[in-house]
Amino acid sequence: MTKDYVERAKQIDLNNRAMFQAAPETMGGFRKVVESVGSDGALDAKTKEIMALAISVAMRCEGCVVYHARAAFQKGASREEVAEALAVAVEMGGGPAAVYGGEALAAFDQFADA
Amino acid sequence: MTKDYVERAKQIDLNNRAMFQAAPETMGGFRKVVESVGSDGALDAKTKEIMALAISVAMRCEGCVVYHARAAFQKGASREEVAEALAVAVEMGGGPAAVYGGEALAAFDQFADA
Amino acid sequence: MTKDYVERAKQIDLNNRAMFQAAPETMGGFRKVVESVGSDGALDAKTKEIMALAISVAMRCEGCVVYHARAAFQKGASREEVAEALAVAVEMGGGPAAVYGGEALAAFDQFADA
Amino acid sequence: MTKDYVERAKQIDLNNRAMFQAAPETMGGFRKVVESVGSDGALDAKTKEIMALAISVAMRCEGCVVYHARAAFQKGASREEVAEALAVAVEMGGGPAAVYGGEALAAFDQFADA
Amino acid sequence: MTKDYVERAKQIDLNNRAMFQAAPETMGGFRKVVESVGSDGALDAKTKEIMALAISVAMRCEGCVVYHARAAFQKGASREEVAEALAVAVEMGGGPAAVYGGEALAAFDQFADA
Amino acid sequence: MTKDYVERAKQIDLNNRAMFQAAPETMGGFRKVVESVGSDGALDAKTKEIMALAISVAMRCEGCVVYHARAAFQKGASREEVAEALAVAVEMGGGPAAVYGGEALAAFDQFADA
Repeated sequence: MTKDYVERAKQIDLNNRAMFQAAPETMGGFRKVVESVGSDGALDAKTKEIMALAISVAMRCEGCVVYHARAAFQKGASREEVAEALAVAVEMGGGPAAVYGGEALAAFDQFADA
Repeated sequence: MTKDYVERAKQIDLNNRAMFQAAPETMGGFRKVVESVGSDGALDAKTKEIMALAISVAMRCEGCVVYHARAAFQKGASREEVAEALAVAVEMGGGPAAVYGGEALAAFDQFADA
Repeated sequence: MTKDYVERAKQIDLNNRAMFQAAPETMGGFRKVVESVGSDGALDAKTKEIMALAISVAMRCEGCVVYHARAAFQKGASREEVAEALAVAVEMGGGPAAVYGGEALAAFDQFADA
Repeated sequence: MTKDYVERAKQIDLNNRAMFQAAPETMGGFRKVVESVGSDGALDAKTKEIMALAISVAMRCEGCVVYHARAAFQKGASREEVAEALAVAVEMGGGPAAVYGGEALAAFDQFADA
Repeated sequence: MTKDYVERAKQIDLNNRAMFQAAPETMGGFRKVVESVGSDGALDAKTKEIMALAISVAMRCEGCVVYHARAAFQKGASREEVAEALAVAVEMGGGPAAVYGGEALAAFDQFADA
Repeated sequence: MTKDYVERAKQIDLNNRAMFQAAPETMGGFRKVVESVGSDGALDAKTKEIMALAISVAMRCEGCVVYHARAAFQKGASREEVAEALAVAVEMGGGPAAVYGGEALAAFDQFADA
């Protein structure tokens, strides 16, 4: 009964597309936010993606955990880097972050194996 | 593997009933809160229901998103109105609100098609 | 020892300006999000501003409560409409929303008297 | 520059009164919720008040921390009981709960000294 | 289509184990936090476990709700005690706490029947 | 009427000390969590501190924002790095993160000038 994170990420992609069609101006502005974060700067894009994953875990956002676990993998984050970011999330979020961190790790492993 | 929001809403109804039986005084008081919000006033009931949906999205409450998507549909909210409320939620909640907003839209569409 | 909400709102404006200068691309994208929500559509701008205030209360964001209480007043929201939106926030946030709702009402009253 | 928690609690009382006047039906229902929790049952009222304080800390609600620190003191909670409840909050909320827990302890001490 | 909470709790156990292996020092420190809360003190261990469940509900942490519903049952909490703690969570979390509280009750009942 | 972040950080230090005395075992375990995150690993300590600041902003924890702004400065984070981390927080937290991000920037600037 393991969760299929690859499938879950695809559902989120579909939902995102529907959101863009339903609220194009708002989501267009938000896309600019996402793009600005996705480019290298004083911090490189990979580090910022790992940071987004840690925030997702600390905020207990299940869909975001899946989405940013995939993105972190795609940007070349190592499992060790992800684990350290999850440790920061546990510092900032206690037990709930441990639960969502475990989810993040399981998702990352699935994307790495896919 | 699409989520069955109609079924999910029924589960919440059953859980709510169990909560009322287990904690009748507290839930009785809470019912009065819900009823007061559900009636027309300076804001009409439909607008307040859409507002509850936007709050559900911004707070990342999965069950609430399903519950209030159904209620918004039942009170006559249009898809356009829901989309605009989700835009407010994205303003106030960023990426996580986009994820839960996508869920809200998918749920609303299922209730509209049911 | 009453809190000076007018002054607090000005501090937020100054901080916002500093944020725009420090992260112009991200904040530029976010400004588009804000502008899209600030215009009339299927829901009018005033209703969406009241909605943003209710979300601020439910999320327990002190600064946002002050900021959106001012904006709601400036967009012509009545005290009755604000009170009804705060009732929705209490439905969705319980005691903490009652506390931040009280703050929102006090702030709204100060902006109305200023 | 120590914070005056006794004064802060009085402000919350005033804000609460204004909320009740502005939204009497909703706040009347919510009062029933509060009263039901405030009476002895399978858990005694003091334990439930300490629980509300721990939740306030874990949720990072500054005003609630002050309000429920006072209520816990008034219901006879000892400093040791409060400290143990704050430990549960730290388990569930990590660093932020340690910060708000410190605030809760400082508030409790002021109410005990008042 | 009822949710299998016993299975869900096992998944969390597996994820926790993976977290401990991936971040042993952080999770080792966190284990000490958990152990300190799990022992009797000014408040007994059962009461603190029920408190952790109420916090899980108020914070809307789905996995934590399942995890602490199991732990509360294992530490001998009665259904009445759980229900009263959920009432406190509803006081502090409104509608979303009612939704997650219903989940907590359903999970508790499954663990009691297992 | 600018906020004195240096003084605020000192209050948090004092509150932390009181928490350690009141709940030594729990806080001792939590200190190990903090120490593990504070050392270099797959991610260096400075990056993890910036990450903790971004999480503080996304979670809207006022005290944490002050505390981790100071720590980020002390670990050698540049204003540009902080600004980029705040951009990630805005992506993940929308308007509230913009408000708390502005607070983080103002606090960082005060610590840099002190």
